[in-house]
Amino acid sequence: MSLLVTGSIGIDTVETPTGRVDDVLGGSSIYFACAAGFFCPVRLVGVVGEDCPRDFLKPLKGRQNIDLAGLEVRKGSRTFRWHGRYHADDINERDTVKVDLNVLAERGPTIPEKFHDSKYVFLANTHPALQMELLGQLKSPKLVVADTMNLWIEHEKKALLALLGRLDGLVMNDSEAKMLTGQSNVVSAGMEILKMLRKFVVVKKGEHGSLLFQRGKVCAMPSYPAVKVVDPTGAGDSFAGAMMGHLAAVDKAGIADLRKAIAYGTVVASLELEDFSLKKLLAISRDDIDARLAEFRDITAF
Amino acid sequence: MSLLVTGSIGIDTVETPTGRVDDVLGGSSIYFACAAGFFCPVRLVGVVGEDCPRDFLKPLKGRQNIDLAGLEVRKGSRTFRWHGRYHADDINERDTVKVDLNVLAERGPTIPEKFHDSKYVFLANTHPALQMELLGQLKSPKLVVADTMNLWIEHEKKALLALLGRLDGLVMNDSEAKMLTGQSNVVSAGMEILKMLRKFVVVKKGEHGSLLFQRGKVCAMPSYPAVKVVDPTGAGDSFAGAMMGHLAAVDKAGIADLRKAIAYGTVVASLELEDFSLKKLLAISRDDIDARLAEFRDITAF
Repeated sequence: MSLLVTGSIGIDTVETPTGRVDDVLGGSSIYFACAAGFFCPVRLVGVVGEDCPRDFLKPLKGRQNIDLAGLEVRKGSRTFRWHGRYHADDINERDTVKVDLNVLAERGPTIPEKFHDSKYVFLANTHPALQMELLGQLKSPKLVVADTMNLWIEHEKKALLALLGRLDGLVMNDSEAKMLTGQSNVVSAGMEILKMLRKFVVVKKGEHGSLLFQRGKVCAMPSYPAVKVVDPTGAGDSFAGAMMGHLAAVDKAGIADLRKAIAYGTVVASLELEDFSLKKLLAISRDDIDARLAEFRDITAF
Repeated sequence: MSLLVTGSIGIDTVETPTGRVDDVLGGSSIYFACAAGFFCPVRLVGVVGEDCPRDFLKPLKGRQNIDLAGLEVRKGSRTFRWHGRYHADDINERDTVKVDLNVLAERGPTIPEKFHDSKYVFLANTHPALQMELLGQLKSPKLVVADTMNLWIEHEKKALLALLGRLDGLVMNDSEAKMLTGQSNVVSAGMEILKMLRKFVVVKKGEHGSLLFQRGKVCAMPSYPAVKVVDPTGAGDSFAGAMMGHLAAVDKAGIADLRKAIAYGTVVASLELEDFSLKKLLAISRDDIDARLAEFRDITAF
């Protein structure tokens, strides 16, 4: 089943305790599409500026499963740039050294007509009013899931709540879930957010795994116990990509489907962070993912 | 199979966001024994002072599975007292308002001769030299596991390392595991500590679950997604009690046994923190524990 993602495309500079990369391909829609592409065809919608190097998106162009018809190269605009630095004593913490929103601060992308029939939709983090507008361009989506961030919870809560009412699912961090609800207990927070939307909430806790909330049901999953953590950039988007990719592939979103989707999200994220930028996602195959899922099942069995 | 625990007995005052209790029964050996008693007979070794109220240990005396022959009421001494306050905005954080070591700062307890043949042994947190001395009083234990704390890692590392070499297993917090090894990655830390002892290391991450390290194997388990967290005091000792109780009951400590033991530890801890002091542990039955284990299996399945 068709899966559409709208989100950022970025030129990233990343510093971690083990190294540094400059001006590499990044952005939520990129990581999402690469991860989801292991499961089903993906339609990518995003905008870069004129400054974007010609061959920058080449790695994605080589992937048959990713349709770049929704990629706009905007004249007179500049590409989104992000420079992040992970803490030497705790790679789960990072500082933004510099951010140039550039094209992300302009009008949003237009979804090409041939994508309007998309059934599975992921609205990666951006202003909730823009997420709403993008959603409005689609005909009859079957499952709409979004990501958000603290900035919108703090400053655009009204627009965010309006969006939530239109969503089937939401993916967010534990700190965001606590901020949105004012709850200090993350389980209570997830249960409260669940009431704001239609089907499910996934609360990601980084290295501590995730919680899935559905009506009357909670599912708890640890993360994969990763030793080799080179660059966590994009792990959350890869998680969402694998999760949505599995749901679109099986064309169902029942309890068992969602749990397996989140397990796939967990293992794909654990692979992604083993190298900088998209290096690992471009080097692995679906077999590697399924092998790690089998390992993860063993690791969590009792 | 016989299970022996050595540890503190305390008079606790606890403040949490939902209430306060004054001068209630606490201490590592107490929580441990109550939890372990659901699985097998427990032998308790600990010391209180003359000031200890006559009926203070009455709740334990009513439990057939707990043998108090190792309880010493020391003349001229005072009982260990602890006053803790949990943070209003995060119940996973706490401050020690006041601590009076009293009898814990004197010589350790003597293990009664009738306990010398104990096969399963848990040395709850105290000075590692004292843990070593207690271990020396036993004839031929089959599985010896200990707990420790940041104080000994920082100031008594040599004694601690000597103790580790004599242990089959160790239970510790994630922050302690990082401190002991200097590793920022908790998985790497657990693997490194595993080399210091014979069989296994359990790293507890509080609300984020636990990791079990055995030769060539890691097991990751989330915590039970608890909404009702009234008083976390004793949750870690209850975890250890249920874990050791299961191992002693089945008289095995293979991979599958350890994993199930940790699942029992997880669910008993999740029950324990639903009320102050020992209230919940004294109110539940083994059936309640098994019902929660079944629920936990469902919550974590994918």
